[in-house]
Amino acid sequence: MGLIVQKFGGTSVANTERIFNVARIVTQTYDKGNNVVVVVSAQGDTTDDLIEKAAQINKNPSKREMDVLLSTGEQISISLLAMAIESLGYPVVSMTGWQAGFLTDSNHMSSRIRKIKDERLLKELDKKNIVVVAGFQGINRYEDITTLGRGGSDTSAVALAAALKADLCQIYTDVDGVYTADPRIVKTAKKLEEISFDEMLELASLGAQVLHNRSVEMAKKYNVNMEVVSSLEDKPGTKVKEAVKMEKMLIKGVARDNDVCRIAVVGLPDKPGIAFKIFTLLAKEKINVDIILQSIGREGTKDISFTCPCGQKDRAIEVLNNSLDSLEAQKIESDDNVSKVSIVGAGMQSNPGVAATMFEALYDSRINIQMISTSEIKISVLIERKDSERALQVIHDAFQV
Amino acid sequence: MGLIVQKFGGTSVANTERIFNVARIVTQTYDKGNNVVVVVSAQGDTTDDLIEKAAQINKNPSKREMDVLLSTGEQISISLLAMAIESLGYPVVSMTGWQAGFLTDSNHMSSRIRKIKDERLLKELDKKNIVVVAGFQGINRYEDITTLGRGGSDTSAVALAAALKADLCQIYTDVDGVYTADPRIVKTAKKLEEISFDEMLELASLGAQVLHNRSVEMAKKYNVNMEVVSSLEDKPGTKVKEAVKMEKMLIKGVARDNDVCRIAVVGLPDKPGIAFKIFTLLAKEKINVDIILQSIGREGTKDISFTCPCGQKDRAIEVLNNSLDSLEAQKIESDDNVSKVSIVGAGMQSNPGVAATMFEALYDSRINIQMISTSEIKISVLIERKDSERALQVIHDAFQV
Repeated sequence: MGLIVQKFGGTSVANTERIFNVARIVTQTYDKGNNVVVVVSAQGDTTDDLIEKAAQINKNPSKREMDVLLSTGEQISISLLAMAIESLGYPVVSMTGWQAGFLTDSNHMSSRIRKIKDERLLKELDKKNIVVVAGFQGINRYEDITTLGRGGSDTSAVALAAALKADLCQIYTDVDGVYTADPRIVKTAKKLEEISFDEMLELASLGAQVLHNRSVEMAKKYNVNMEVVSSLEDKPGTKVKEAVKMEKMLIKGVARDNDVCRIAVVGLPDKPGIAFKIFTLLAKEKINVDIILQSIGREGTKDISFTCPCGQKDRAIEVLNNSLDSLEAQKIESDDNVSKVSIVGAGMQSNPGVAATMFEALYDSRINIQMISTSEIKISVLIERKDSERALQVIHDAFQV
Repeated sequence: MGLIVQKFGGTSVANTERIFNVARIVTQTYDKGNNVVVVVSAQGDTTDDLIEKAAQINKNPSKREMDVLLSTGEQISISLLAMAIESLGYPVVSMTGWQAGFLTDSNHMSSRIRKIKDERLLKELDKKNIVVVAGFQGINRYEDITTLGRGGSDTSAVALAAALKADLCQIYTDVDGVYTADPRIVKTAKKLEEISFDEMLELASLGAQVLHNRSVEMAKKYNVNMEVVSSLEDKPGTKVKEAVKMEKMLIKGVARDNDVCRIAVVGLPDKPGIAFKIFTLLAKEKINVDIILQSIGREGTKDISFTCPCGQKDRAIEVLNNSLDSLEAQKIESDDNVSKVSIVGAGMQSNPGVAATMFEALYDSRINIQMISTSEIKISVLIERKDSERALQVIHDAFQV
């Protein structure tokens, strides 16, 4: 008995059969005496179809009008799911983003939620209605429709769970939980029963692609109990929460990120302030720098290397080339054929053997480490992309996760 | 220079090419120094597609959820048209029904407009924006989405023109005006330059299918200058207004309605109160009775015949059969193979020759009249459906309209 928020993505409501599958999950939860709020995304390819429709008319439409267009996708989903729940004989009411009280900033197509005015929603729950809410959308202070951008529906669900002080926020996906490594690559990967917010954040940003970071950050901030669970199979998922019970397992997962590119500024003078100049230039261009390495070059010079997402590579190189003279650098080099492989787990910092085990596993497999980065709960290495799947496997084996 | 409301139906925004055609009409009106408010319907078959989607999930969905679903159709249209207008370089903003302030009653799927809160819309016009409004939709007092039912977008446009005290409300369609008869049937039909609200109401209810009665009734009530004009050809349409200049032409048009069925209650006792009983029964079932004829039957009995829309025939017959005993009637008969053919024109009542001319034309063509009905501005006859096209032609010829 409690209040449960359940979120279903676009593939979970892609057709009539799947919509009824969702309706059954929702009504079973309701039958157990819970209040249920359901957050849904647009059906399957709806959003892409709408973007294509817009592109035929205007290659560069205003973001305000794109939001008016895109928000129809979830509105279709909520009404269809409500109709399915009705047909199973349950009381239900659908609500668009504005009806559910999602107030956002005015940053169209990637708005942030400022507040949820949940009076209407609470009234519907009081009437024992199942409430189906359109994810991904809200309105700004001018009552213009806004959308939340990537991972928006996850964020809607967590924000709603936080506002309503829900007992649980279940994120239904086409995987059945969070694994110790990508099960498509590492056959011995195991599903985690629990994971902490911080570990989930590291895994998500490292390319685990189960939950969007925005939603996990919000869940951490408001201490929302999350669960990643399969919409296709009825079995326990992975709980994501603040406090995780101690387990013998130190490493929670091994992840790979291919959306990474290495750039080197070669032949810099060995004097103070150079790194500051470089990263100020890049920050101005909003380039997300990840790992940074400074090394001694030839003849008293030094090199500074860093990684950034592939999509920002060209811009980063352009900015640096334009400043070659003021940086007194010789040239800019770059490498696309790299991957970042990381291990994540709380408490690894106080256990120096962890890094050694990881490096040894790579050394034994003759995989060369180009760069290293560590945080309190993760260790990342940059390696050649061709080695990355093998690296995932040997590291996973080494830690017997 | 003024404020013009322009309404475009579903076929006018069915594809990219047509949307740009509308954008050009709108921006040309704006270029002449006018404030322009555009009301649009859902694209082409969108509404039918959405109804089909719903039917796959629930044969009898709640009307509230149907309204949530159907209202996405116009929301897609407004954003796409706004994007097209943007791409032509004009300032534009789209507004859904609720954003434009359409407050309706709670009669989902056939709501009536109670009020338009036009503050936001007026602000956008003050900023010299072209405003694109979703027709057909609004919200009720609970902020639930409602739709206006058949002819809804025409009604939205006229209501907006009334609220904003617009100088003109142009209804763009795929015909170029109101004709003296259906030009697909009567080749000599002529386009009317002007028509009064009352004449338009009679023509519309008689099956002229150019404007919906609800919108004309509202235009008459608030004295909104309307114009029916082609979205495909740039030429003058037909003005619909209160006062129409006197013309030599007495008859404004000849119309046919095939959605009519004749029902006869046969062998009633010849005593008072029988007609009252019959039409009270029918009124309780909300059956729209049109022409009524009472005639003497055999052996001191009488028959009462009436017409109603085809869709209500079965219900009407059922209701009457259930009351055969209390009505002391012998039996119920019905006939589907009828059409109503009518002539419309203000002032015909003070000119008795009009009816005679009509009846003579039908007699000369050996077309039998089953029933006759007259009002101040129209004369209708019920005839066999197979004769109806010929009747249109010969009546049109007789009046040389």
